Amino acid sequence: MKIAVDAMGGDHAPGEIVKGALEAIRQFRQEVILVGDEELIRQELAGERSESLSIVHAPEVIAMSDSPVVAVRRKKNSSLVKAVQLVREGAADAVVSAGNTGAVMAAGVLLLGPIPGIDRPAIATMIPNKKGKTLLLDAGANVDCKPAHLLQFGLMGYLYMKEIIGIEQPKVGLLSIGEEETKGNELTLSAFQLLRKAQINFIGNVEGRDIFEGTADVIVCDGFTGNIVLKASEGMVTALLAMAGEEIRRSLPAKIGMAMLMPALRSFWRKLDYAEYGGAPLLGLNGIVIICHGRSQARAIRNAIRAGRESVENNLVLAIKNCIQQSLNQKVGQF
Amino acid sequence: MKIAVDAMGGDHAPGEIVKGALEAIRQFRQEVILVGDEELIRQELAGERSESLSIVHAPEVIAMSDSPVVAVRRKKNSSLVKAVQLVREGAADAVVSAGNTGAVMAAGVLLLGPIPGIDRPAIATMIPNKKGKTLLLDAGANVDCKPAHLLQFGLMGYLYMKEIIGIEQPKVGLLSIGEEETKGNELTLSAFQLLRKAQINFIGNVEGRDIFEGTADVIVCDGFTGNIVLKASEGMVTALLAMAGEEIRRSLPAKIGMAMLMPALRSFWRKLDYAEYGGAPLLGLNGIVIICHGRSQARAIRNAIRAGRESVENNLVLAIKNCIQQSLNQKVGQF
Repeated sequence: MKIAVDAMGGDHAPGEIVKGALEAIRQFRQEVILVGDEELIRQELAGERSESLSIVHAPEVIAMSDSPVVAVRRKKNSSLVKAVQLVREGAADAVVSAGNTGAVMAAGVLLLGPIPGIDRPAIATMIPNKKGKTLLLDAGANVDCKPAHLLQFGLMGYLYMKEIIGIEQPKVGLLSIGEEETKGNELTLSAFQLLRKAQINFIGNVEGRDIFEGTADVIVCDGFTGNIVLKASEGMVTALLAMAGEEIRRSLPAKIGMAMLMPALRSFWRKLDYAEYGGAPLLGLNGIVIICHGRSQARAIRNAIRAGRESVENNLVLAIKNCIQQSLNQKVGQF
Repeated sequence: MKIAVDAMGGDHAPGEIVKGALEAIRQFRQEVILVGDEELIRQELAGERSESLSIVHAPEVIAMSDSPVVAVRRKKNSSLVKAVQLVREGAADAVVSAGNTGAVMAAGVLLLGPIPGIDRPAIATMIPNKKGKTLLLDAGANVDCKPAHLLQFGLMGYLYMKEIIGIEQPKVGLLSIGEEETKGNELTLSAFQLLRKAQINFIGNVEGRDIFEGTADVIVCDGFTGNIVLKASEGMVTALLAMAGEEIRRSLPAKIGMAMLMPALRSFWRKLDYAEYGGAPLLGLNGIVIICHGRSQARAIRNAIRAGRESVENNLVLAIKNCIQQSLNQKVGQF
């Protein structure tokens, strides 16, 4: 099994990307294809060789500022397009990229195509919380959704947590403004009725606070809400630390206290660190695509490669295909 | 000037509500009318008297589980309806309630009515952040919004921060998924064009992380998104504290460290405490209505009474009326 890695995507490319790939090769004996400017990649490798490592040269780069669809159509020799192309051709089993999220999405849709029955692929982000972790989708791929899309997200999220993470009967919740089924906006009220008929463990509406309580294993929402909630949470942690830090710096006892506290907080920080979770799978495509945070460093890339590997090993695409086919046959709701 | 206080609304009613009212009377010499079961209120007062305090008897209570509109229509003798009625009749200048939020909204709309030109009143919540505080609206009153509603929220939020909080040229941002004006969903893309033409200091789109960065003084969003973001943030703080607390309890040095840290963190906690902000004004009504958190204790009620008083002193309703009238005359956008 081979994982194609977009060596030129992300704020720390290609250095940290190459480093992460090497870690994956060493630690999981994973075969990796680095896709990007060969000379730059070789510089980063600094003579390092491995039977598990190959390079596919791609002279172009899609920038963060590029218009996604246009860039994917025009830059045929970009590291991203070439990497996704490898999956399309069967030369690689999954692709990992920390580049322009919109462009990764566009390349996935244009080159791999959606699974029949799935209208829109969704970004599925793992969120740490009190009880472990919750998969939230869509985290920003689809800003305007229809009820059937939320149903599809629910099915895909359920399958991901079951097949890849290994949770027996993942609990699927619909993000809304109250627990009662009468609470919500037009979109969620209709989606609720579709989800309740689906063959998943639907637990009904969940609220904003449930994301961090760990009430559900999967939380379904439109990409607009998902994106805002995720960015707000990220921003809140950063702001809280900055605000607390300011108070602490003013006092010597507080500084000493903080130093004594740090070791205990290390595993806590680790839980909050996106790098632990190895990127967000783009679910619903005819192939495995893992989107990494633009700020990803080696550890995040290594973990994303592992996430891609696990999705391949567990036949994620086939599992979603079969489930969607079944749902289509049963004509569940408006699906 | 008199403030009517719903003595029976909230988890800690009537005890904490009465206590909060007494604090307001003592500290700001505010005249207060306590509305609710007279006997229960007198018990809480325990003989305490003041020229600034009067009681209006209301034998009924609207429960948290009551259907808002039905309850407001049927329970004419409830503490909430009677308190809002006092504002309608001019016997009080503002009303404060920690009861059923939907019922407070319904009573406001049915008894006071919206300001001409305002389609929907909005709950405006103050959020502490790195630079001070940001007013977010709508925080949950309107789950499905049209672009014109978001424009109205923007105008009202701008006026509130200017007239009541005293910020010279409040910066108004539209909550979306990217800074560029091309980023957003159908609703925000249209609302962006209306807001840019309004006579306010519109700074364009802001993202989830900007809420806690303090990028804007006012953040406009639909009530579905606003409610979810607020509850997610609240839930996140609770979960973070619980998760950190668990790690700290396992280690003696960490426990000592935490004890040394606490004094420095006190003003930080204070900033995060909703009770500091004294409830959320319901903007857009022909009268001042302040909605408090259901968990409000005396300090939150006292501060809500102060917020109501400041809104009255600064002629908030008139300011919104004039501004909306002006906007209507200028036919700003689709307004």
